[in-house]
Amino acid sequence: MTDRNDCLALDAEDPLAPLRDLFALPQGRIYLDGNSLGALPRATASRVAQVVQQEWGEQLIESWNTAHWIDLPQRVGDKIASLVGAGAGELVVADSTSVNLFKVLSAAMSIAQADAPSRRVVLSERDNFPTDLYIAGSLARERGFELVLVDDPAQISARLAQGDVAVQMLTQVNYRTGRLHDMAALSGAARAAGALAVWDLAHSAGALPVHLVRDGADFAVGCGYKYLNGGPGAPAFVWVSPRHAGRFQQPLSGWMGHAAPFAFDPGYAPAAGISRYLCGTPPVIQVAALECGVDTLLAAAGQGGMQALRTKSLALTDLFMDLVRQRCADDDLALVTPQEPALRGSQVSYARAEGGYAIVQALIARGVVGDFRAGVPGNGAGTQHILRFGFTPLYLRFVDVWDAVEHLRDVLHTQQWRDARFQRKAAVT
Amino acid sequence: MTDRNDCLALDAEDPLAPLRDLFALPQGRIYLDGNSLGALPRATASRVAQVVQQEWGEQLIESWNTAHWIDLPQRVGDKIASLVGAGAGELVVADSTSVNLFKVLSAAMSIAQADAPSRRVVLSERDNFPTDLYIAGSLARERGFELVLVDDPAQISARLAQGDVAVQMLTQVNYRTGRLHDMAALSGAARAAGALAVWDLAHSAGALPVHLVRDGADFAVGCGYKYLNGGPGAPAFVWVSPRHAGRFQQPLSGWMGHAAPFAFDPGYAPAAGISRYLCGTPPVIQVAALECGVDTLLAAAGQGGMQALRTKSLALTDLFMDLVRQRCADDDLALVTPQEPALRGSQVSYARAEGGYAIVQALIARGVVGDFRAGVPGNGAGTQHILRFGFTPLYLRFVDVWDAVEHLRDVLHTQQWRDARFQRKAAVT
Repeated sequence: MTDRNDCLALDAEDPLAPLRDLFALPQGRIYLDGNSLGALPRATASRVAQVVQQEWGEQLIESWNTAHWIDLPQRVGDKIASLVGAGAGELVVADSTSVNLFKVLSAAMSIAQADAPSRRVVLSERDNFPTDLYIAGSLARERGFELVLVDDPAQISARLAQGDVAVQMLTQVNYRTGRLHDMAALSGAARAAGALAVWDLAHSAGALPVHLVRDGADFAVGCGYKYLNGGPGAPAFVWVSPRHAGRFQQPLSGWMGHAAPFAFDPGYAPAAGISRYLCGTPPVIQVAALECGVDTLLAAAGQGGMQALRTKSLALTDLFMDLVRQRCADDDLALVTPQEPALRGSQVSYARAEGGYAIVQALIARGVVGDFRAGVPGNGAGTQHILRFGFTPLYLRFVDVWDAVEHLRDVLHTQQWRDARFQRKAAVT
Repeated sequence: MTDRNDCLALDAEDPLAPLRDLFALPQGRIYLDGNSLGALPRATASRVAQVVQQEWGEQLIESWNTAHWIDLPQRVGDKIASLVGAGAGELVVADSTSVNLFKVLSAAMSIAQADAPSRRVVLSERDNFPTDLYIAGSLARERGFELVLVDDPAQISARLAQGDVAVQMLTQVNYRTGRLHDMAALSGAARAAGALAVWDLAHSAGALPVHLVRDGADFAVGCGYKYLNGGPGAPAFVWVSPRHAGRFQQPLSGWMGHAAPFAFDPGYAPAAGISRYLCGTPPVIQVAALECGVDTLLAAAGQGGMQALRTKSLALTDLFMDLVRQRCADDDLALVTPQEPALRGSQVSYARAEGGYAIVQALIARGVVGDFRAGVPGNGAGTQHILRFGFTPLYLRFVDVWDAVEHLRDVLHTQQWRDARFQRKAAVT
């Protein structure tokens, strides 16, 4: 049996432990929600202050050139590319995940319409993150495609076999369950069936090694404010395989995606490659903050990079699942995250019929910050209420896992969660 | 004849003069480019630091509720609404101007398709800001509309009279010439002709009083980083007349525009009213910075608000034009901004056949920051090279106008602009 001293010993020998000092973490919290909003890197506040006070305040409009604001989407994009198995010049920072998904789905539909016009299905999962389904549904209606949702990933190959799928749109790690898809297998299956593979990396970029090029993805989008630690509402990113990037223009053809934005030509001519996936003026302050977040991941390069972070992430989540099983076993927490390492990301989720919301609130009151996702009638995995705990190997320690489980054990065994102050007030907030 | 002491006297009696102290302006610069990037408000750096260090760093995910991040798009939207003649709850901060234009044009086309399906023209001007034309062109192609461009605003009514215009899309103040459209007359003309009026307020929101509701606009978008002083890449805003806001969903149907984003329903149900024009997660840091910028305009409320700012803006630009005429008259600067106050915004532009770029560079070297826009072959007004000077009444003084003109006079009369260091190196940057 593991005890707290064993966890302290694991931290003492962890080569990644010093990376925690890259973050300005609040006292007295164990933050298990970096999958929703990554923690603040220490470098960010001064970098943001520099952008605001010197670059904007002092240099004003000249900073587009002198502070290289104009290159930020590509510069930070190249750094993210190195984390997700893409090449330099293949990925840009822009807009939100939702907006970027609109761009790539639109391009994918255009390619399908040109190359395989009889294919009219966009295939996804019912428990994909809702915004992905909303955007895909809207575009499918506009373009005369049909959005088809499977309830279980095992149904994907059968649906592909029907021969009418134009685009397969999947999120690599499920936001509720933490289930990880096999990108190589599913991209390969899509390609073999004549479909294009679009990937949402919201819960995988910065959480585990991603290999977009090696694994045969066609398009990808991802989020800047989760495992990339870019701050609240950080801009997202978009990647397009070089084999498609120059083929079509995407419909959000704003001036920053023009071949010569400052020529002010009334006619649109798309920039070469991925830069045509830019649209309006980038949010300079937040792109700069995102760069600081991405740099925290790049700082692990000397200790083995994303692969080493993945090893620690799996060790943290293994430990959490083990300790919950050992120490909270008498309660009706049902693990919904697959235990198999190849099948999960960097979070652990439990379903509970009763009191899930209140348990999370009671933990937050003790400084253990996870989150709660209500079950959604009609959503595949969604009929269950989910307690969700994210484990960010950059700043979490093994002893944090121990302490978090002790708090969970207390909340459950003392039934503290039944206290009135932890009950939900409104319907859904 | 005016002299420098007259200008100092004008400043001494200007009731708006104290507003300059709301800004952290660099020493030794006369900043005449607030129409491109507004100056830094003093309040912004500390507010941004608070968002980064306390709200993000300390409170982390809880700030969506405790710091009211979730309400920011509407809260700041309501403040902007009060500057542009719209009601509370009618306007939100979101995305970029380009992305918001895509949303409103799409909705306008949907309304036209439903109400007047034979109308298939989107009408605009050839020298509209290019991103507007790019977005409109892209959507028109997608939806089977035709983008028709007039070369002179006088042609608009004749084109409307052909009876096939579905949407009239105009920018209220032209980015190159500073020409101001009559929103009431042109919205009325569009409506009388059966078309919807879409307005881009990029160079008018915060620059002059705008009356969206009174003047009969149907849709509007605008920029956060020019006269609203929101910082580089500040998010934009979108307004939809309440008579249309609930009619269609726009295609960028991201989760923040859902009626209940945190219910995580796999099916999209648009929020009531303008909130359905939200898409992805808002860039919290930049929305907070934008609020500080908007607050600098609201600070003028006690001195007469936008109307008083407009009066000063016209006085500044009148003075600039007068002094240039008096003191730089022997040079071939051709005023392209209309002199009539009802026909111009808050900038003054001159065309020059030779040396425009170098003159602007020589002025910047002296601390007088304007900008240069190259002429665009095939663009109506765009065959001329333009020197552009923006006058922001919040932080510019009459003596700044005097000093700027003296520098311009020196640069011209000494032919300093012919110096090699001021010549353009690359083709277009």
